[in-house]
Amino acid sequence: MTVLGLGAMGTALAQAFVSAGHPTTVWNRTPGRAPGLTGVTRAKTVADAVSASSLIVVCLLDDASVQEALAPAATEFTGRTLVNLTNGTPAHARRTADWATQQGADYLDGGIMAVPAMIGGPAGFILYSGSEAAFEKYGAVLSAVARPQFVGTDPGLAALQDLALLSGMYGMFAGAFHALALTSSEKVSPTAFAEQLLVPWLTAMLGSIPAIARDLEYGADGAAGSNLAMQSAGFANLLDASRAQGVDPVLLAPMDDLLARAVHEGHGDEDLAAVVQLLRTAG
Amino acid sequence: MTVLGLGAMGTALAQAFVSAGHPTTVWNRTPGRAPGLTGVTRAKTVADAVSASSLIVVCLLDDASVQEALAPAATEFTGRTLVNLTNGTPAHARRTADWATQQGADYLDGGIMAVPAMIGGPAGFILYSGSEAAFEKYGAVLSAVARPQFVGTDPGLAALQDLALLSGMYGMFAGAFHALALTSSEKVSPTAFAEQLLVPWLTAMLGSIPAIARDLEYGADGAAGSNLAMQSAGFANLLDASRAQGVDPVLLAPMDDLLARAVHEGHGDEDLAAVVQLLRTAG
Ligand SMILES: NC(=O)c1ccc[n+]([C@@H]2O[C@H](COP(=O)([O-])OP(=O)(O)OC[C@H]3O[C@@H](n4cnc5c(N)ncnc54)[C@H](OP(=O)(O)O)[C@@H]3O)[C@@H](O)[C@H]2O)c1
Ligand SMILES: NC(=O)c1ccc[n+]([C@@H]2O[C@H](COP(=O)([O-])OP(=O)(O)OC[C@H]3O[C@@H](n4cnc5c(N)ncnc54)[C@H](OP(=O)(O)O)[C@@H]3O)[C@@H](O)[C@H]2O)c1
Repeated sequence: MTVLGLGAMGTALAQAFVSAGHPTTVWNRTPGRAPGLTGVTRAKTVADAVSASSLIVVCLLDDASVQEALAPAATEFTGRTLVNLTNGTPAHARRTADWATQQGADYLDGGIMAVPAMIGGPAGFILYSGSEAAFEKYGAVLSAVARPQFVGTDPGLAALQDLALLSGMYGMFAGAFHALALTSSEKVSPTAFAEQLLVPWLTAMLGSIPAIARDLEYGADGAAGSNLAMQSAGFANLLDASRAQGVDPVLLAPMDDLLARAVHEGHGDEDLAAVVQLLRTAG
Repeated sequence: MTVLGLGAMGTALAQAFVSAGHPTTVWNRTPGRAPGLTGVTRAKTVADAVSASSLIVVCLLDDASVQEALAPAATEFTGRTLVNLTNGTPAHARRTADWATQQGADYLDGGIMAVPAMIGGPAGFILYSGSEAAFEKYGAVLSAVARPQFVGTDPGLAALQDLALLSGMYGMFAGAFHALALTSSEKVSPTAFAEQLLVPWLTAMLGSIPAIARDLEYGADGAAGSNLAMQSAGFANLLDASRAQGVDPVLLAPMDDLLARAVHEGHGDEDLAAVVQLLRTAG
């Protein structure tokens, strides 16, 4: 196959394909990148790289770089499969899918849920959406880089869920940052706190998330024990105590506002799914 | 023992004591609450409830309600042990500890790391701080409601770590809310997304938190592969795509600001521990 882009991630992808025994052609805008990558064929132009394989994997900085890189090779794509693992939005994915279809190519969009060091290992996974035929044909080959998971024929769905997972991760990190700042304001070891209390607690509370999702999807049958009025009242403590400990509550303040708004709008006896509704500005 | 407060949590606590075979007296401001709770003695006044037992557990809405409820029964506390499981700040805990000492009572402050449904089960735990003698005397009895964990003789330390754990949880929930709002903006089942993708992904990423704590405590030796400049640049897609999907990015916006500020202040090649430092306004 062909890998377009030899940044940190593209290099890891190409390496994983080579390690799995697949003949691999690579291209990068700036020549000479990833000198340690051996066993590959280096193409001079995108058109040469595309015409070398029936499966083309592209992993560049962003959507704009994908558009710019692929345009000169458009006519080479006929009859091939394009797999785009560049981070982007659902709109980006749908537009590139249309473009690929116009060239007579099959298209899969992908969201990599891994860092480069996890590529080729068991911990990461990649979300794919778009052509089911392409996934059936190449899923096994693509599993050389990370466990592939097909999430739908709408090409935007992988990007949507990739961004959703990243937002979940950054929220969790934001909470952890605040927690670590709070405990390190007193004589409490952040490492001991993280290992002995925070990680076990978050692991336990992870179990509530599917319940919130179910309430959101199927409707909640009353507050299941942690009503929003109680939670909103408790949140004031959290912010006051943080300020008193010399910790800026900036990362948590929007949650306080949102809980207060939910109570103000009459959802005080409901539970957390009611807050998710407040984030929807349309639809 | 005596349980003051029959809200969702107080009821669960009383139920767990009864189930463990402890004679239990209960009181609630509004009579007739928790009609399904059987096997308890219902006291008409706080003073009656306090004088019925040597161990008094209080779990009301907030610190103000505790002050209001306990004041009329102050003289009844002499020689008894007060365990306050109401959510509060370190300052609240230290003040109630002083008040209890003035009444000649032993005092333990506690932070419940569980929802009512987890009380009496194995998943939750309760942080205690204050009188070590009281913890030694009643730790075994208190283990009927959830695994007890003593965190120090300063009565404020349980509240501090409780609030830190809650901030961790609310951050994680904030991320999950955003993720669920994003996925439900398209035809993606929030339940399937939560169960099959979000929980496994957050479980995997939880492993990064002790490393962030270690970097914070002992210093980081360079960025380990996910530098802040890259992460800050990637955050834009997340916010743009959210707006495009009709999802208000209010819960994630402060993380975007904080990452940008860290990069602006010269930490672009460091990793996430550098962001925690920015939250400290003092010390
Ligand atoms: N690294 C991660 O942890 C990670 C994790 C998940 C997803 N991803 C995603 O994977 C993609 C690649 O990330 P990376 O870590 O490999 O980034 P990177 O190391 O910064 O590499 C960027 C690549 O994009 C190329 N490029 C940039 N602008 C271009 C243009 N206009 N035309 C052609 N090529 C262009 C660069 O080529 P030059 O050498 O010529 O500059 C380079 O090959 C991104 O979308 C990222 O979000 C990364
Ligand atoms: N539920 C949870 O998931 C959870 C988890 C951890 C910790 N907690 C903490 O546990 C405590 C109780 O929570 P909850 O869920 O049981 O709340 P809840 O269901 O809203 O019950 C509140 C209780 O406080 C009483 N109360 C309120 N104001 C009072 C006053 N001025 N004087 C006397 N009693 C008053 C109420 O009595 P009335 O019936 O007369 O209104 C009721 O018994 C809170 O501090 C909460 O932060 C709760």
